[in-house]
Amino acid sequence: MFENEERERSAVSVVGLGQMGARLAQAFLAAGHRTTVWNRTPAKAEALAARGAARADTLAGAIAASPLVVVCLPDYGVVTDLLAGADLRGRVLVNLTSGTPQEARRMAGGIGAGYLDGAAMSGTRLVGRPEALFVFSGDPDVFATHRPVLRSLGQAVHLGADPGLAAVYDTALFGLAWGALAGFHHAVALTGAEGVAPEEFAAVATGHMPFVTSLMTEHARQVAKGEYPDDDGTVEVHAAAMEHLVHTSAALGVRTDVPELVKALLDRAAAAGHGADGIASVVEAIGNATARV
Amino acid sequence: MFENEERERSAVSVVGLGQMGARLAQAFLAAGHRTTVWNRTPAKAEALAARGAARADTLAGAIAASPLVVVCLPDYGVVTDLLAGADLRGRVLVNLTSGTPQEARRMAGGIGAGYLDGAAMSGTRLVGRPEALFVFSGDPDVFATHRPVLRSLGQAVHLGADPGLAAVYDTALFGLAWGALAGFHHAVALTGAEGVAPEEFAAVATGHMPFVTSLMTEHARQVAKGEYPDDDGTVEVHAAAMEHLVHTSAALGVRTDVPELVKALLDRAAAAGHGADGIASVVEAIGNATARV
Repeated sequence: MFENEERERSAVSVVGLGQMGARLAQAFLAAGHRTTVWNRTPAKAEALAARGAARADTLAGAIAASPLVVVCLPDYGVVTDLLAGADLRGRVLVNLTSGTPQEARRMAGGIGAGYLDGAAMSGTRLVGRPEALFVFSGDPDVFATHRPVLRSLGQAVHLGADPGLAAVYDTALFGLAWGALAGFHHAVALTGAEGVAPEEFAAVATGHMPFVTSLMTEHARQVAKGEYPDDDGTVEVHAAAMEHLVHTSAALGVRTDVPELVKALLDRAAAAGHGADGIASVVEAIGNATARV
Repeated sequence: MFENEERERSAVSVVGLGQMGARLAQAFLAAGHRTTVWNRTPAKAEALAARGAARADTLAGAIAASPLVVVCLPDYGVVTDLLAGADLRGRVLVNLTSGTPQEARRMAGGIGAGYLDGAAMSGTRLVGRPEALFVFSGDPDVFATHRPVLRSLGQAVHLGADPGLAAVYDTALFGLAWGALAGFHHAVALTGAEGVAPEEFAAVATGHMPFVTSLMTEHARQVAKGEYPDDDGTVEVHAAAMEHLVHTSAALGVRTDVPELVKALLDRAAAAGHGADGIASVVEAIGNATARV
């Protein structure tokens, strides 16, 4: 009896069974939650039904089936159209659709139900594994209640009460990942031009990334204080080394735009008076004063 | 007796006691190696002598004192001038001076001694700790013989027989680190404009970096094969998302050059016919065909 109640309380419906939605449903099923699925095109629910998911015939049926309704659709417009007129009373909507902070805040205000906005940060492949990062924002009590279910998806991190935060982090982490990948892609091209095989370079490069990551923690501390000690070298010294990288790249027939961009950031920091400061001062050459909260 | 022989064999001299050279000597001392130091300006050796280092009166004395001579000087010109006429027979020179692959290859060929070129990848603060990455290139047998001493500095990785490789990796890893930092700095500015404190963002961002690092391993594998599956999204999808980041940044008063650069890389890959391919194909839009060895 108790077991059934527990199973009822941890039931979840997944609406939208695209590549990500299907993975979400699979992860909930794998974690033992009663999982109901619905998709506008019913065919997409078949494979999940074969794995034990319940298929709702209507959206209303999917909403009625579980206290937690997870939505993952192409964009907020589709979500709004779909949910127009739906009865969400007593339900919590978790919206993993990509959008802007403004869209998330507007939906949270108008949905007439508990609301969490979320973003999947690690692609579809890792969903359900602890390495997969999911960020959520909105009412902390709602998150606390449903965390046991949401963490079936991976690492479930609550960012704060502002429902817009998941979208903010989504965009920012995407940019962070691409900065690292652009640096890596340039480095692979550069070492490749010197005859180093990509996987050989990657083995050393990935071993170096924990150090690079530790610099991020240190830089954040410095930005928060607005103090930039030069322990890891000054802006000017790094600008000179980056110019060396531009020349080395050009000499090897490798495009120079990645190191040139970094050089430009460093030069802008120097022009703003940070030449003899530490390199974390580059943040001030990108953002405005509100970067220091 | 045996212990003395062992101590003799693992003795090391450090020539050049700038910020890095002094840290190297400290790490060798901390690991229990008989350490002899020499610097053109003798005052710099005093603090090290107080910690147990032997001070050589002359460069020749420092070279005579140990089978392994570690040199860390401002540039290769200084090294060449200093070592002109020095008797290095029977010695191994480990050169941690920053320079180009060509300078390293030239020095390896003309030094008349065993030679390893090296680079310190993790700044000065971590020297002597396992997180500090030191890369070396040159004769693998020479490296194998002296590895027990060199690993007192941190993680000691041998890259290959070509003495130029340490300089190649040095430059490439510097570019990689800066790509990641530029992405991070932009993300700190962006989230800061939305009211997120730098350290709060960093806590989530650093938790995301192991995933980003795992993409590097996967991308290297794809570049080696020249095959770019779209499991993590196509170049076109990422270009659209990156354009969204450009707009979001602009709307928040944050400089757009970091996401604009990435957008340009993705657009170039698309223009080269990789629009529907996976994002690792961007490497081909940076380097030339030799990137695939």
